[in-house]
Amino acid sequence: MSGIFITLEGGDGAGKSTQAELLGQWLEGRGLEVVRTREPGGTRLGAELRRVLLHGGDEIGAVDARAEALLYAADRAQHVANVVRPALERDAVVVQDRYIDSSLAYQGAGRVLDVAEVRRISEWAAGGLWPHVTILLDLDPKTGAGRRRARGGSADRLESEADEFHAAVRDGFRALAKADPHRYFTVDAALPIDEIHTRIVGRVSGFLTR
Amino acid sequence: MSGIFITLEGGDGAGKSTQAELLGQWLEGRGLEVVRTREPGGTRLGAELRRVLLHGGDEIGAVDARAEALLYAADRAQHVANVVRPALERDAVVVQDRYIDSSLAYQGAGRVLDVAEVRRISEWAAGGLWPHVTILLDLDPKTGAGRRRARGGSADRLESEADEFHAAVRDGFRALAKADPHRYFTVDAALPIDEIHTRIVGRVSGFLTR
Repeated sequence: MSGIFITLEGGDGAGKSTQAELLGQWLEGRGLEVVRTREPGGTRLGAELRRVLLHGGDEIGAVDARAEALLYAADRAQHVANVVRPALERDAVVVQDRYIDSSLAYQGAGRVLDVAEVRRISEWAAGGLWPHVTILLDLDPKTGAGRRRARGGSADRLESEADEFHAAVRDGFRALAKADPHRYFTVDAALPIDEIHTRIVGRVSGFLTR
Repeated sequence: MSGIFITLEGGDGAGKSTQAELLGQWLEGRGLEVVRTREPGGTRLGAELRRVLLHGGDEIGAVDARAEALLYAADRAQHVANVVRPALERDAVVVQDRYIDSSLAYQGAGRVLDVAEVRRISEWAAGGLWPHVTILLDLDPKTGAGRRRARGGSADRLESEADEFHAAVRDGFRALAKADPHRYFTVDAALPIDEIHTRIVGRVSGFLTR
């Protein structure tokens, strides 16, 4: 595989979708094939699971924490096998919203599960595939919540969790970035959109010239 | 937990449903609360996943082997947490079609995955809960196929796999029974229904009097 695998991480409202879009356009402008995708939900199976996980509600009742982690892992296995690996094998650049790090930050830091086991299952699901670069859009959860309200969409199940949960998620992402500084690139997501984009391009273009 | 957890295993057409029904009636006749259940599909989440796994077909495309194993594990986590453990905690007898052993026999023996890893994930999903007794209805796969045809139902995805797959599944179950003779009770599923039931009752009643 000789493509490049870039993931964007951070809490809801941090601007992952916006930056992924801008980065994708910039990469395409350099003549590269770009595959924009996301977890959960980047495959037809994943779309079904995303519907169950985020909007199941009364229909299926409370989802057990281990069951939830395993559903995210199943989505990941399908997505890596059917979308990410094939793209990397044809030298494309994959720009993806959320990956293993989200499982670790959300399930591990915020919930009741053992982080090491969640990581082990995620790595098995992904066949050991880690991104070349992970961009962390780091934002105070209160700012993220304000942005989500301004965006006006209806809150899904994860978005309506308590503030302290979002703070724990942020701490989780920061700890992951600190533990893996070679892979991680952290950007202050309170900066203007263009400034964030410029910083991301700086990191990614440095990577492309290798 | 002081209830009793009994699972039935074996290939399709081996008579698990029939024997589970007879065993359940016998246990109820002794004044015990019986919970009859199955995997996959014993919860509302599980029913959704069962639909995806067995009848997804063209709708979702081919399911990656790891994704499939993880979906079964997710179903198991939800089922153990919401159905099996609560029943055992109120001293009921759980009589269940298929459990971890089916994952090991189908995914491990018949597919491409590492059996040890599938076992590890299943055990994690189940929170380490193993049955008190596992009844293996052992049958020549050719006989099982004949019974399924006689039953006249439409073949689901697993049932339409090749004969050699079913033979590998049988070998997998037999190896599991040999490795765990204390938990397993193997019955020749080619015997008459009443004779099989009598043998199962002999094993289970011996267990109840402890």
